[in-house]
Amino acid sequence: MPSAEILSIGTELLLGHVLDTNSQFLARELAGLGIDCFFRSTVGDNKVRIKDAALAALSRADILITSGGLGPTADDLTTECLAELFEAPLDFDETVFAKIEKFFIASRFPMPESNRKQALRPRGADILPNNNGTAPGIIWQLDESTLSKFAIPGKGKVILTFPGVPQELYAMWNETAKPFLQNYFSGKKIWSCQLKHFGIGESALAQKYAHLLDLANPTVAPYAGFGECRLTVTAKGATEEEAKTIAKPVIDEILQTSADHCYGFDDETLESVVGKLLLAQKKTLAVAESCTGGLVSQRLTDISGSSAYIKLNLITYSNEAKMDMLQVPESILVEHGAVSAQCAEAMAKGILKLAKSDIGLSITGVAGPDGGTEEKPVGLVYIGLATRNAYRDSHLNLPSHLSRANIRQRAASAALNMVRLFLLENT
Amino acid sequence: MPSAEILSIGTELLLGHVLDTNSQFLARELAGLGIDCFFRSTVGDNKVRIKDAALAALSRADILITSGGLGPTADDLTTECLAELFEAPLDFDETVFAKIEKFFIASRFPMPESNRKQALRPRGADILPNNNGTAPGIIWQLDESTLSKFAIPGKGKVILTFPGVPQELYAMWNETAKPFLQNYFSGKKIWSCQLKHFGIGESALAQKYAHLLDLANPTVAPYAGFGECRLTVTAKGATEEEAKTIAKPVIDEILQTSADHCYGFDDETLESVVGKLLLAQKKTLAVAESCTGGLVSQRLTDISGSSAYIKLNLITYSNEAKMDMLQVPESILVEHGAVSAQCAEAMAKGILKLAKSDIGLSITGVAGPDGGTEEKPVGLVYIGLATRNAYRDSHLNLPSHLSRANIRQRAASAALNMVRLFLLENT
Repeated sequence: MPSAEILSIGTELLLGHVLDTNSQFLARELAGLGIDCFFRSTVGDNKVRIKDAALAALSRADILITSGGLGPTADDLTTECLAELFEAPLDFDETVFAKIEKFFIASRFPMPESNRKQALRPRGADILPNNNGTAPGIIWQLDESTLSKFAIPGKGKVILTFPGVPQELYAMWNETAKPFLQNYFSGKKIWSCQLKHFGIGESALAQKYAHLLDLANPTVAPYAGFGECRLTVTAKGATEEEAKTIAKPVIDEILQTSADHCYGFDDETLESVVGKLLLAQKKTLAVAESCTGGLVSQRLTDISGSSAYIKLNLITYSNEAKMDMLQVPESILVEHGAVSAQCAEAMAKGILKLAKSDIGLSITGVAGPDGGTEEKPVGLVYIGLATRNAYRDSHLNLPSHLSRANIRQRAASAALNMVRLFLLENT
Repeated sequence: MPSAEILSIGTELLLGHVLDTNSQFLARELAGLGIDCFFRSTVGDNKVRIKDAALAALSRADILITSGGLGPTADDLTTECLAELFEAPLDFDETVFAKIEKFFIASRFPMPESNRKQALRPRGADILPNNNGTAPGIIWQLDESTLSKFAIPGKGKVILTFPGVPQELYAMWNETAKPFLQNYFSGKKIWSCQLKHFGIGESALAQKYAHLLDLANPTVAPYAGFGECRLTVTAKGATEEEAKTIAKPVIDEILQTSADHCYGFDDETLESVVGKLLLAQKKTLAVAESCTGGLVSQRLTDISGSSAYIKLNLITYSNEAKMDMLQVPESILVEHGAVSAQCAEAMAKGILKLAKSDIGLSITGVAGPDGGTEEKPVGLVYIGLATRNAYRDSHLNLPSHLSRANIRQRAASAALNMVRLFLLENT
């Protein structure tokens, strides 16, 4: 398989002023073309380091892809550095310059003298056109004899340069670079998908699927975060269809074994899955939150179109609000407290009645860092789910050292998962 | 100036499945500490390449910071690779293991055998505690004699490892790594603070303070994101006190010029500032949200102790909920629609009355991506603020190409800022 390295150039990246989304885009696209990528690096606008990094990348990989450093100012050094690296003179490209001039005429800004620089290209390199900005890139194919002069191993390598502006890079990739690379290598296609899990930890998942983690094609890898887990299945094949076919038996096995621990694929979230189920079953949901303070509601309404199933949610933070709005009996609050199974039940039934919804969901707990007691420590959360003729509840004992945000996030996920499991039983 | 390199570890990064936000966070934080960062790299879960990249980084920089590869599974290789690199045996840390066990007991998941691995640390390295997950990192100080054995130049270097989960990494950085690095370099102390702004754009801010952006000590740098802006002022001095004294005149100038555009410092947020003002003025706030769907409420209650001033919030997503719960007259909804100044006013007055609070806040708008019309495009948001004897409102025309999440975030910030400005007038 051919291999590529991505080199991001720009001091603003090293200072953290800019998030490097180009690298992710390029990484995904390369994987999609079946091109391996084993290293990615970032350097600032510095000639020595740009040249060092470019040389190191070309010594290892077949393709070097750079982003950034193609602008008109003195600290835009990419083209210059690459030309110096291979001792190629910089030619002034009249066609490119005419295009840059046209760009400025269209934008009605005067063209600064410095933009002439963007029409320079190393002798032997082709232009990688940019239809959305003034900075074109280059496609530079280097043959074995040129490479050997500079002690770089390999029969042939190619350098592609892109500007740092994401929209320009995306278009240049899709219009020119991607078709170029598809022809340059007759490579395998890669297809991958994520299987999202809730209610099972990363290591338990890894243990359950230990026999899959060493596979070569497809590969299976577990990732975790915020109480959720996912398995990424990646397959290679001559076509995307073939790659999918290779992945299918493993995906089927995971789906069957994980059962309802697996809630969805790729971009799906607990809230989007709950939303889909509610829509399909034409049910409405109303939520009464205490410790999560609006987080469940916010997540549910993050989904465009959620107004079809979310009509009214309440954040009843105080005891008075629980009594006044949800008719939680004062006796429950006095005898059992606001953080109790009894209160969760009264809240769920209260919001169901108030909102006239099909499902009423309640959450009450101690999010911390203050407010915990020996009997009711930080991390204790009660969740209630009521319908007109049923009620169920559950409670969590989350580790009390977790941050307030983390406890709230996990509690919200658990509540959404409870709704998901309830709705699944009805399908 | 000391220098650091950031090494991100994980095949999921090279495949583009995950966007590397950790690198940006670390880069920003290093810049804030006055630590140079000239290279950043990413490698997959591969022993040879992890070791190569770590060695290259340590040959160039004083500090190596890694993220990723600390999980319990077979493809988590960071600790192992570093130990092998310096031929250090891996010791089993009983204290760390006890903490991991506790974590599992609390979460009621059974602990898989593989998690034992996370209690291993190279002999000579200290633990970098992780209070939000099972994977601790290490802080490994390497002296000149150790380094010279492995042909690495330098009098002393330090390695810090973090897990890949951003929330765990952030907390570990702030709780342990940042204070450690501040003390690690003798010589000059660095002190920095952020002046947080709302209601003014990054370029307007940069223009207003153009004369400060080229200063050498203190340095001033603007950052922007999600409708907020901040100026970071960083000073160096023999002591932290001296650094503070050097920064003071610039901070004073910014505070005076920015006036109420500057809402706070460092970790302060609009919601924490609003919370402080409410507490000081012994006032309560109730919120009725529509388009933000619980986000304002969630942000307000992110603050521990917010139960002192938040009693009840409503998410009245549907017209029925607006009428039933907030007594919004049907005529307003028919004549002006739910997204209107009139509806915002009725909602604010309605929640004030229902919650018997001192301030009632309402938000209604079009968060998109669907639901916009020519008259009421995506991004149009009305905000109302009612007290027993006053009412004020405002509206936003946010760019309609922004994402739903971004529009909700900006609308929530604008609403919180309105409360802040109102409370400031009363002090």
